[in-house]
Parts: sequence; C-alpha cells; structure tokens
Amino acid sequence: MNKDLTASRLRELIREGQWKTPTTGAAQGYVQANLVILPRDAAFDFLLFCVRNPKPCPVLDVLEPGQWEPKIAPGADLRTDLPLYRVYMDGKLEDEVEDVMDLFRDDMVSFLLGCSFSFENALIAAGVPVRNLEEEKNVSMYITNRECIASGPFSAPLVVSMRPMKPELAVRATQVTTRFHLTHGAPVHFGSPGEIGITDLGAPDFGEPVTIKGGEVPLFWACGVTSQMAVLSAKLPIVITHAPGYMFVSDMRDEQLTLF
Amino acid sequence: MNKDLTASRLRELIREGQWKTPTTGAAQGYVQANLVILPRDAAFDFLLFCVRNPKPCPVLDVLEPGQWEPKIAPGADLRTDLPLYRVYMDGKLEDEVEDVMDLFRDDMVSFLLGCSFSFENALIAAGVPVRNLEEEKNVSMYITNRECIASGPFSAPLVVSMRPMKPELAVRATQVTTRFHLTHGAPVHFGSPGEIGITDLGAPDFGEPVTIKGGEVPLFWACGVTSQMAVLSAKLPIVITHAPGYMFVSDMRDEQLTLF
Repeated sequence: MNKDLTASRLRELIREGQWKTPTTGAAQGYVQANLVILPRDAAFDFLLFCVRNPKPCPVLDVLEPGQWEPKIAPGADLRTDLPLYRVYMDGKLEDEVEDVMDLFRDDMVSFLLGCSFSFENALIAAGVPVRNLEEEKNVSMYITNRECIASGPFSAPLVVSMRPMKPELAVRATQVTTRFHLTHGAPVHFGSPGEIGITDLGAPDFGEPVTIKGGEVPLFWACGVTSQMAVLSAKLPIVITHAPGYMFVSDMRDEQLTLF
Repeated sequence: MNKDLTASRLRELIREGQWKTPTTGAAQGYVQANLVILPRDAAFDFLLFCVRNPKPCPVLDVLEPGQWEPKIAPGADLRTDLPLYRVYMDGKLEDEVEDVMDLFRDDMVSFLLGCSFSFENALIAAGVPVRNLEEEKNVSMYITNRECIASGPFSAPLVVSMRPMKPELAVRATQVTTRFHLTHGAPVHFGSPGEIGITDLGAPDFGEPVTIKGGEVPLFWACGVTSQMAVLSAKLPIVITHAPGYMFVSDMRDEQLTLF
C-alpha cells in the first residue's frame, strides 16, 4: 500500500521516475512539506516573512545556500525528490518540471514549510472526521481580507483552508491542532465567513467545495498557499516551488512536530 | 512601585535618563526582551540561527534595516529605550553606553528575542516558587556540552538556566513553561548535570549559585545568553546588544506570548 511506504522509499521511487502522482496520502505519518527555493539575496526577507507570519508559514527547515540535503531528511535531494516542481520567473509560472538539476544554483536557498497533512492525520486519530478526506476532495481554500505582515518585497493576504464540523468536534479540533504549531496550529477563525472577507463558501479560490451539513460550523486554518502568494508577489527573477499536492516527504514523523 | 509602572512609562524614564538600573522586576507583566543589532549582511544567517534554535533564541520581533520602532512597542526607540547597551567590535566588548544614537546605521537590523522573566512570573502565579527570586539572586547559568545548530558564521554551545525544585513542582513547572514557547518553553533537561556537561552546579558560568535543598531536582531551561555567545562567535565588525539585565521592555503582556 502506498500509505505504508517509508518516506525514504517514496523519495527513492520519485527520484527514479517511478512515482509521478501527488504525495497526498502516501507514506502516511511522515511530515510532508511545502518547498520554496529562491536566490540568496531575497532569503532574509523571505525568512523574515515566515517568522512574522508563523501560522500560514511555519518553518520546518532552511538550507544553507547551494545545499539540497535537508536536516529533516538525511540523504534526500531537494532537486530530484519531489514528483513535480513549478518554476516561476519574474512572478509568472514558466514551467512545470520533474527535477530541477539544471536550474538549481550555488546561490539558492531552500525553505521547507509545514503543511496541513500532519494535523489532518491527527484529527482523524482523535476521532474528528475531516470532510475533504471523507469526500476525497482537495480541501477548500479561500483568500481572506486579512493581510499578512509584509517583509521587504514579500506580501500576501492570509489564505485559509476550511473544514466544517459540529461545535463539539470543533472544540476538539482546536485542541488537537493547537499541538501542531509547525503545521498551521489552531484555527484562525470559525463561523461567519463574511468576517474574514469570504463571500461564498461554495466557491473556494483554490481546491474544491465540500458539503456543509446542518448544524456544522466552518473552521478556518491558516494555509500554506499564503507562502506561495507571498513568493509570487516579490516577482523574483527565479523561484522554484513544489507543484500543488506534490510535496516533499521528510523523515520526521507527525508526532515529532508537536509542541507538547 | 517600580513593578507597577507601565512599559511605556518605564521606557520614557529610561529615555530621559531617569532610570539607569536593570529592568528586572520593573513594569511587571510586560514582556522583556533581549536585543541584538547587527549589520544587514549578517542578518539572514543570524535570523536562521534563531529559527534553527528556537528554544534558546525565540524571535519576538525583527525590524527592517534602519528601523528602530518595534511592532511590539509602538512609539518606542530601540536606540535610546534601554538603560545600558554593550557595543562589540570584531567579537570584543568595546564599550558600554546609555544610548546608541551615534552608532546606529541605516543598514542595521534589530532583533528582539524572548527572555525568561515572562515564564518566571507565570511560575509564581501557578504557585511554583523560583529559588533565584526567593534569594534575590541572578539565575544560575551554565554552558553545556550541547551544540546549537550553526548558521553561517554563528555557532554556540547551548547555555541553560537552572532552577531547583521538588519533583511534583517540576512537573507543574514543565506544564506552565510549555505554554511559553516564545520565552524558552519547556525545560531541555532535568536531573544529572553531568549529562549535559555541567560539572559543578555551585559554580555557574554566568549569574550566581542558588541553594539546592534536599529532595530537589535541578531543572534546566534554554537561556538567551546562547544568542549572545552566537553573536560574539561571528566576530562581526560591529554588534550592539543590551547589557545583561538591562532589557528592552515591550508593550506585550506575558500572557499574550503563550501558545494556548
């Protein structure tokens, strides 16, 4: 079963070109991460953007310029071990590629940021059903009217993901995700979508709509797509990221990420 | 009473030259912070050092190059609002001064890092006595045999502070400080000092020794002095820090720092 693969075996399959699909649900229990690779001279401003906005952009690992082997996955190679990359030039999507050996330069700094897969596993384990998983859909994501704290050329609205649940499960979900401060932590909002500038829950800006049942409240968590928008806002000559859903799979286990 | 001053009034007194003593115990309940000011070209490596070692070096605020007004204290001026500064050149202490108006440059980046005063207040509030406060001494601090994760020219051993207590209070102290992840968080060690390279609890590397009573266990927390050692290790042309005990007092309240 794909979900029973170890992280290192999954990375090996990817590197050998034998795995070309999204990493969602694969090597379950291992921490998956958003990838951002950008030039050294923008690295301070971007790291500061992440530090200033830790809920949408929790930093799992940052590599020295020119390095590709993360501390959270010894032996891995960030240039080859994701199934699909996006290459942006001057803020525009230029290409989607299966490795970035030819694009990676000595002055490039790689950032790995937490993603919500880890806390979704923890919710399930705690008996809190996750609608997007139940319906086998991509989570619903929305651009809010809240601005992140900018840093140098990086700015973005806060993007959130939404999961609907009954109030008693919403309380449990808040407790569980609080422990996962490196994968977006506790919700940033619940209830009225209008409060945070969302006009129609049925029309997410990214991902797919999910069913909201009677008596359920929408819970909103900070979302990693925020970092992608910030990266694009800076219109750097070159930026490399993962393609949505094609994440980097680290050797860390979800429970190693928790604060307590 | 000094402890009842507001943070902004205390900063005003300092700026006007009417307060020249340590800030320990003053404006109680407001978050105090370690200050590090260094040139822009070392800022990425230092910020990354902090991100990689969040227990000793928790980031509260980082200012844009040339800026001196922190977000966590609107109206404050980092060049004048600490009672005493240290100026280091090429890794050596050059001077202690009461303001740094003449030294501050457009390319300088200011970092404010969490300090343990916040969680000491919380321990007291939770009924956990703090020996160094009881004995009116500076906390005992030790250089350990654990290395921080280096970043560029910044490296340091982990420095810890030690507070002795009975096991049941040690459990309570661990719970209470877990909530304060931006002021060093939960202990990094307890019990045998030899495990982390400390040979004599009676001879701390910084601060003063405190009484350890029968049945008490030493608890060790990551300490902000670690960041000072990292800063010196880089031997930068110029670095400005607070003088020990003469901290920056922000407008944030201790309880605003907690994760939950």
